[in-house]
Amino acid sequence: MAVGEGKIAPLLAVKGIRVAAVSSNIKTPGRLDLVLFEIEQGASVAGVFTRNAFCAAPVLLAKTHLQQAQSRYLLINTGNANAGTGEAGYLDALRCCQSVADLAKVSLNEVLPFSTGVIGEPLPVDKIVVGLPEAYLSLKSDSWLAAAQGIMTTDTRPKAASLKLELAGESITITGIAKGAGMIKPNMATMLSFIATDAKIDKELLSSLLEQAVNKSFNRITVDGDTSTNDCCILVATGSSGVEINTHNREEFCQGLNQLMMGLATDLIRDAEGASKFITLTIAGGESSEECLKVAYTVAESPLVKTALFASDPNWGRILAAIGRAGLENLDVNKVSVYLGDVCIASNGAVDKDYSESKGQAEMDKQEIDIRIVLGRGACVETVWTSDLSHEYIRINAEYRT
Amino acid sequence: MAVGEGKIAPLLAVKGIRVAAVSSNIKTPGRLDLVLFEIEQGASVAGVFTRNAFCAAPVLLAKTHLQQAQSRYLLINTGNANAGTGEAGYLDALRCCQSVADLAKVSLNEVLPFSTGVIGEPLPVDKIVVGLPEAYLSLKSDSWLAAAQGIMTTDTRPKAASLKLELAGESITITGIAKGAGMIKPNMATMLSFIATDAKIDKELLSSLLEQAVNKSFNRITVDGDTSTNDCCILVATGSSGVEINTHNREEFCQGLNQLMMGLATDLIRDAEGASKFITLTIAGGESSEECLKVAYTVAESPLVKTALFASDPNWGRILAAIGRAGLENLDVNKVSVYLGDVCIASNGAVDKDYSESKGQAEMDKQEIDIRIVLGRGACVETVWTSDLSHEYIRINAEYRT
Repeated sequence: MAVGEGKIAPLLAVKGIRVAAVSSNIKTPGRLDLVLFEIEQGASVAGVFTRNAFCAAPVLLAKTHLQQAQSRYLLINTGNANAGTGEAGYLDALRCCQSVADLAKVSLNEVLPFSTGVIGEPLPVDKIVVGLPEAYLSLKSDSWLAAAQGIMTTDTRPKAASLKLELAGESITITGIAKGAGMIKPNMATMLSFIATDAKIDKELLSSLLEQAVNKSFNRITVDGDTSTNDCCILVATGSSGVEINTHNREEFCQGLNQLMMGLATDLIRDAEGASKFITLTIAGGESSEECLKVAYTVAESPLVKTALFASDPNWGRILAAIGRAGLENLDVNKVSVYLGDVCIASNGAVDKDYSESKGQAEMDKQEIDIRIVLGRGACVETVWTSDLSHEYIRINAEYRT
Repeated sequence: MAVGEGKIAPLLAVKGIRVAAVSSNIKTPGRLDLVLFEIEQGASVAGVFTRNAFCAAPVLLAKTHLQQAQSRYLLINTGNANAGTGEAGYLDALRCCQSVADLAKVSLNEVLPFSTGVIGEPLPVDKIVVGLPEAYLSLKSDSWLAAAQGIMTTDTRPKAASLKLELAGESITITGIAKGAGMIKPNMATMLSFIATDAKIDKELLSSLLEQAVNKSFNRITVDGDTSTNDCCILVATGSSGVEINTHNREEFCQGLNQLMMGLATDLIRDAEGASKFITLTIAGGESSEECLKVAYTVAESPLVKTALFASDPNWGRILAAIGRAGLENLDVNKVSVYLGDVCIASNGAVDKDYSESKGQAEMDKQEIDIRIVLGRGACVETVWTSDLSHEYIRINAEYRT
């Protein structure tokens, strides 16, 4: 199941980036499961990583290498997360990096490792090492779509997007891929995403641009509230276009980057495990961004709200109950309104006088549903995106060993 | 689905309490849906109520009446929660109380109303008023089991228990009933429970006894993290046995009350919506009770952990991932151990060296599963009880309009 068709517009190459995706038989023979990115010398690289205390060996290593040197290669495998594997897992991640370093004749710390898949099983390093020469030899500038396929786990379709921006008459490109279908929840991205641009951006600025964009995209989505041990989002700026991002064009670049990343983030939700609905949840009238998000995540992660969405049941009582337990101090329920699309379902703490079940049903029958909650206590607004909770979610997660 | 057989031992009458359960056709014709408790004059009554900001009309009224007078009657209906019904709902609850007051010739504020069922629909007051005379006329001391049946919603079986305590050679009785199968989560009981004893306890002491017992029972269970708008737990002490609870026998009485309430609370979990497993989750080695509970609820409410439990999959990686995102400051994952029953599955942040999949599988195949997490940072221990997340949960909650 997934919401919408998930069509991907043609992906644009990013000067200074070459990509390869091959099959190294990690879990499913013949499936693309090993992806290699090559980043030209002189590029800036920034990363945001999972905040889970049990972060996986490759995350620890990638963070270290990112600080030590300019990253030249990103190595991603699926089928095995190399998480919960202790010291041995760390050594395994090192061996994979060393293997890339040997092939490409770069230093060990110029390679960043990423893994996603089953937790707690030893990484099949030998399979990865065997697959690497083919990956290295097939590096090309136009393999982004294959890479998007190569990083999938329970995703039913690849997620990728490209964007061309004209900045004062000069053109730059941003292209990115993402994976993730469950264990999706902010703090942080809780998925893998690799984005590159040919704009020239120094590392410090790049980090801050990435952080703000993540906060508006991958940190605003939730499937099940679970966060993974392996999540990373990497942003590379090769500088090959010769266009430098500065105070004049920064805002414009930001908007483009945010748009691309929000697109990738919402693509993850449309393809969330078992998703039959795509929900945009807007909380307005909050005193602070924090309290809007508190309400947003309480509603978005309520199993009762999610099953009602799955059933297309305009069961607004469950939404009220979730708002009521979000833990807001002195919430005046008589000022709270709830809208499904344009239909006001509840106001003044009770069902709206103009509401009718048929109006609510018409909104709930849609595949893409907007829920708007107005708290009536301030001017802050936050939007998060989520999915419903279906039989298919249970089936996938009862069968799949993360 | 439900775990175990849910057998109820014979229930003991409590001197000073009479009970009736009748059918008033609120939602399902012929089903017991109206329960009346009569409490003799001179009894003490204490209550704990939902902390949900959207608390239902009957909760607001019950809290007010409980403060104003000695409660003489408890009126409970199922099939309609009278929640999200605004001012009209409050007046409806008042009318029901008035009807009992007229029948029994007591004051309006000596009646406490309780409702559970569908949210947001007007309470069918006329049906309730029509059913009340029959309820009033059939009040008996031995109708506790019928009352347990009469307060059920999605429960598949009634929950009730009795206890006889010998305090310094004198005998007292405690009998209680409870309902709740979903929307179960602490803060507070998130269900309905009515408990009575013939011990003599002044109101202030009764309140503190109830509060501490709720904290060890109904506030330590979770099904889906959702809390309802209607939850109440009422404890009545009629004093008819002549045995007064004082500093000498207080501890003993406490133990009995806690045991009875923990029994009712875990009965709710065994009959949780869609439950095929009963999970006892113990978090040891925490710095504080608060951080133990943080970890406990993060694990207990993780959809990924719950679906793994449903699948009998010893997928300990999901447990580690949930611990890792519980938000504990400076958690040293290398000190964390996780046990399934007696089997150590993870230690030092990775799979235990003696662990084997077959050992884990043997524990997971059980219907009652003990998960023990040792944080290695302090001496605090907390236990919570929860259920798995099954197809049946989705079916129930996609079909049932709360």
